[in-house]
Amino acid sequence: MNIIMDQLHNAVLKKGPVCVGLDPKEAFFPEYLRKKDGATSEKLFEFNKKIIDATFEDCACFKLQIACYEAFGVEGMIGYSKTVQYLKQNKLLSIGDIKRGDIASSAEMYAKGHFDGDFQVDIITINPYMGEDAVSPYYKYIKERNKGLFILIRTSNSSSTELQELIVDDEPVFLKTAKLTEKWGKDFIGENGFSAIGGVIGLTYPEEMRAIKDELPNMFFLIPGYGAQGGTGRDAALIIGQERCGVVNSSRKIICAHKGINETESFSECAFEAARKMKEDILKWL
Amino acid sequence: MNIIMDQLHNAVLKKGPVCVGLDPKEAFFPEYLRKKDGATSEKLFEFNKKIIDATFEDCACFKLQIACYEAFGVEGMIGYSKTVQYLKQNKLLSIGDIKRGDIASSAEMYAKGHFDGDFQVDIITINPYMGEDAVSPYYKYIKERNKGLFILIRTSNSSSTELQELIVDDEPVFLKTAKLTEKWGKDFIGENGFSAIGGVIGLTYPEEMRAIKDELPNMFFLIPGYGAQGGTGRDAALIIGQERCGVVNSSRKIICAHKGINETESFSECAFEAARKMKEDILKWL
Repeated sequence: MNIIMDQLHNAVLKKGPVCVGLDPKEAFFPEYLRKKDGATSEKLFEFNKKIIDATFEDCACFKLQIACYEAFGVEGMIGYSKTVQYLKQNKLLSIGDIKRGDIASSAEMYAKGHFDGDFQVDIITINPYMGEDAVSPYYKYIKERNKGLFILIRTSNSSSTELQELIVDDEPVFLKTAKLTEKWGKDFIGENGFSAIGGVIGLTYPEEMRAIKDELPNMFFLIPGYGAQGGTGRDAALIIGQERCGVVNSSRKIICAHKGINETESFSECAFEAARKMKEDILKWL
Repeated sequence: MNIIMDQLHNAVLKKGPVCVGLDPKEAFFPEYLRKKDGATSEKLFEFNKKIIDATFEDCACFKLQIACYEAFGVEGMIGYSKTVQYLKQNKLLSIGDIKRGDIASSAEMYAKGHFDGDFQVDIITINPYMGEDAVSPYYKYIKERNKGLFILIRTSNSSSTELQELIVDDEPVFLKTAKLTEKWGKDFIGENGFSAIGGVIGLTYPEEMRAIKDELPNMFFLIPGYGAQGGTGRDAALIIGQERCGVVNSSRKIICAHKGINETESFSECAFEAARKMKEDILKWL
């Protein structure tokens, strides 16, 4: 069975492990775009489209942090919708970084919203605090519509320790979450050996993460924390290894690469170079 | 200092502890509304407005489960925006049940989105899995704009046990979360003695929840789980007590009360009766 994580893994093998984070803020827009007339949704889409067109050959997928769109209200959500539809039209893989987590009746509504209709993406991120009830409503979409999930296991921020590192039966909570994630995903394993339910692990503690990975060989990873958050190419390579079992996200390093260098319509040439450089920075360790 | 939780507590003292859950689905619309022409956003707003107008004298606040709006795409978000703006115009308290939880740079964007602009509400719900980094970006809005948070402590769904009941140092994880919530909220205590950072606790285990409450006297609670989810008025009364330290949410019991009874433009008379009945069902135990 060829599933979404096979497609993502194949994209990593072909184009490298970079995931471009489309997390626009007004301050990130090049000067020409800030000065231009037009609706915010149009500007958001123009910014994203140029980044996508410049980087798609060097990245496996695109991730949209939905907070950056909600910040702009309804206009932001129109920009989000236009962007995910553009990715779909161009057969590029999309991750909605929505980190939702709610009871089954609400999760069903989130599934409808983010796996169908205006905000439709291939994979969404999910918060595990409520347990499987907050995950199982998506199973139908995994099976019938070839969608996928990334469950938050260990995040890259410093206060992730407060709950995720609490020790239960000699194991940290994040390892419990990792094992739950593996259990939830066991019926959705594709031909490359990865489940359609993967995990989010920050780049902050690569050795420890490598250990999680060795224990959970069917898990594909979404790895934030490269660049602006301090993670290096070597750290990323340590986690994804020769099997290339993950994508490594960077947002600001790529989408802000033009700041102070090129504020014109050709600003995304900087994103092209930054994405290629990031790809090389990871691959050289493999 | 009169803060948002003082306003909410005062509303409970004056109008009772009911929180009406504005969680519309198309199947909940009365027949006249389903048949009516018009944009989905208009229908969502008409449905909500009639419920609000019918129930505001018997409820302390309104809670919007944002999943129900995201399910409708951009039109849903316009309906969400119209509804929260209507509540604001009418000086009615609003809770955005968004359960967001993300790193600081994203939390700042969520704060901008949900405490300002189109989606502005008084209080939002937050997921604690990432620790204080996912909470502290809202502090500025608590201080400067009189906003509030409800942190998910123990949820009302059955798989909440998987992570929330793991035992750490002889205490369940949800009690750790409760203590973290109390710590985060200690600088935001209002004149009625409650912090602007409250907690979400399901109505599923009232005795246990009563114990949390006795340990954390400054915490105001949002309590889901009444009615469709199995909680009773007696359970709710046990938690909120004479001090009335919480609001009790019901959605379907109120907004679906008309189904099969009144499918006309006067459908919301059923919501009026259901909200009043729920209020009496809780208050009679106090």
